[in-house]
Amino acid sequence: MRFTINKEAFLKALTTVGHAIPAKPVIALLTNFRLELNEKGLEILGSDNEITIRSTVPYKIGQIEVIRGAGLGGALVNAHMLTEIVRRMEGDEISMEIIDDSVAKIDDGTGSSFRLISAKAEEYPDIDLEEDGQVFEAKCDALTLLVDQSAFAASTKDQRPILTALNLEAAGDGQLIATATDSARLARKSIHIDSDVRFRCNVKARIFSDIVRLFEGSEYVKVAISASKALFSFDNTVVATRLVAGDYPVTKAIIPTSFNYFLEVNAQELVNAMGRVSILSEKDSAVKLSMREDECEIYAKNERSGSANERIQTFSFNGERLEVSFNPQFVIDAIKALRADDVTLCFQAEMKPFVVKNPRDDSIVELITPMRTY
Amino acid sequence: MRFTINKEAFLKALTTVGHAIPAKPVIALLTNFRLELNEKGLEILGSDNEITIRSTVPYKIGQIEVIRGAGLGGALVNAHMLTEIVRRMEGDEISMEIIDDSVAKIDDGTGSSFRLISAKAEEYPDIDLEEDGQVFEAKCDALTLLVDQSAFAASTKDQRPILTALNLEAAGDGQLIATATDSARLARKSIHIDSDVRFRCNVKARIFSDIVRLFEGSEYVKVAISASKALFSFDNTVVATRLVAGDYPVTKAIIPTSFNYFLEVNAQELVNAMGRVSILSEKDSAVKLSMREDECEIYAKNERSGSANERIQTFSFNGERLEVSFNPQFVIDAIKALRADDVTLCFQAEMKPFVVKNPRDDSIVELITPMRTY
Repeated sequence: MRFTINKEAFLKALTTVGHAIPAKPVIALLTNFRLELNEKGLEILGSDNEITIRSTVPYKIGQIEVIRGAGLGGALVNAHMLTEIVRRMEGDEISMEIIDDSVAKIDDGTGSSFRLISAKAEEYPDIDLEEDGQVFEAKCDALTLLVDQSAFAASTKDQRPILTALNLEAAGDGQLIATATDSARLARKSIHIDSDVRFRCNVKARIFSDIVRLFEGSEYVKVAISASKALFSFDNTVVATRLVAGDYPVTKAIIPTSFNYFLEVNAQELVNAMGRVSILSEKDSAVKLSMREDECEIYAKNERSGSANERIQTFSFNGERLEVSFNPQFVIDAIKALRADDVTLCFQAEMKPFVVKNPRDDSIVELITPMRTY
Repeated sequence: MRFTINKEAFLKALTTVGHAIPAKPVIALLTNFRLELNEKGLEILGSDNEITIRSTVPYKIGQIEVIRGAGLGGALVNAHMLTEIVRRMEGDEISMEIIDDSVAKIDDGTGSSFRLISAKAEEYPDIDLEEDGQVFEAKCDALTLLVDQSAFAASTKDQRPILTALNLEAAGDGQLIATATDSARLARKSIHIDSDVRFRCNVKARIFSDIVRLFEGSEYVKVAISASKALFSFDNTVVATRLVAGDYPVTKAIIPTSFNYFLEVNAQELVNAMGRVSILSEKDSAVKLSMREDECEIYAKNERSGSANERIQTFSFNGERLEVSFNPQFVIDAIKALRADDVTLCFQAEMKPFVVKNPRDDSIVELITPMRTY
């Protein structure tokens, strides 16, 4: 393999694919990029077994030549070192050549020259990047919002792996629904897609959140859901991740549809007050929200530190006095995900799950289970 | 104790003193600020045993009232919680009152109210903040430069505690000289002071670097060096640190005064090239600088990764061919400390200590010991 490449385009692709390189690899080979110069351009592939990213630098972008002096071939080269070398080189073009299938020579034409020990491309594990199963196209913005408004509610603990997933469901009606729950809270968001695909699958929530960050600058993404993987194609990049095995819990019946109490409140004011009382509360301890028609207050107490009391100024509450205790971080996360100026908290009763919603947006539901009060 | 205080002034003082609060305190009491409202204002004190900071918020700044409704007294209040509460409160004024010597009530007048468990001020350990010993005044800028251009060369390892110190020496001639060495490199910087004080002392380099950061916004600092501590007073803040015990090694004779080879080079170009070759070298491994009249190159090699070669474009070298190997980070640190566009590396011979200097600034010397080549 031999080529001379525009530094900026090379570095952009290396950086994108670098997101798949594990910090502490189990398999030593996965510290490498697999580089392959073929008729499409330079394909750079990285994988950490959970996520695989392949970016292709084309020979030309528009009329501008990006790669010249091409001799087809491939190699495995240390990902971190190659990226750092290219990032810090000062020439506008980088020349790379594989010598004797064992050394990658990298040169920037201004006096900087590296020789990295390389391996044969064939030594890399086989990775399935076939686009198969149910295929649909979505706007990157919409898919990013779908994930950002739901994935945070997934579990971060590995006791029940299925709860670390974001559940995706399309029923052939042009809706894509994402659900996440850690069993104490649930978030559900739906977006419209121009497709009648039908599928159910579970993608690790943390990884899905990483994947949508890669969309930056792209408008459309093609999604392919097969029995074992989810594949995302956008611009010159393909990202694949294994699906989480197992049946996702049935959550539809959990979400209440009728409520007895409604608190309308300014989102920022509630988040700020909740953030302040959280200073006192230890991780996963509760705060108490106390509501009457003429008063809305938040209490927190910690035997070792003291107590806090926040009086909400701008609110509207109908009904009798109600007191509900919960993990303040759950309500902060839910409100932030709604991205609304005003939010409504809908309650059935003191110890029943309650809903935090944006009154102007039915596409998203945030459900929170109260905690026992102290 | 009881007072109402301007939020911004309170937060600024809490944040300054917070730098002395240990992340993992050995003594539980040291998680607290000691607050004392006396005739000078509100004194806030924090200490982690290595460094003590006391900031005073005065009753008035110019004609503006900062503290009102004062009832003198004191208390110990959790530093982290108090700072976070004040930071996040939304009122312009904060009221604080100690109730029954056991609870600090904090209120922002807009609906936010906290009660933190507090303790009596008398329970705090005695801390010596007396200004005694040799006292002189310095410009904050000059003292900051003194530390920034020398402290980095101190040892970070505790095997020889004295080498973790920055050695300060004033011989009554209006010069203050700082020396740091980790035994493989040495940095020495002198500044002028308007004083004929005479002293020698050792201040922990890491702590001294933290202290000069606190000078921001102040013009002059008064320094008092006693047998056991160094004390720094600026604006409304006093900072004290224990001196490091022991005799500092005599370093004067180590610095060579005559050289056989001189490499003049652009500082940024050398730093960039050294940074690139360092990608390959493992921690504390050497790079080789090879100089001839018509060529200046840097090599690095790592058996597991490969090799690097940098050709320096802009340089001037007199004399025969010379090859010197060294820890590239030492040369990068030295060049950065010099803050010069062009630097000169002065060599005696291949395995003799060499000097990196700014040809226009005699107040700073950076000495580096070569390493055995691979």
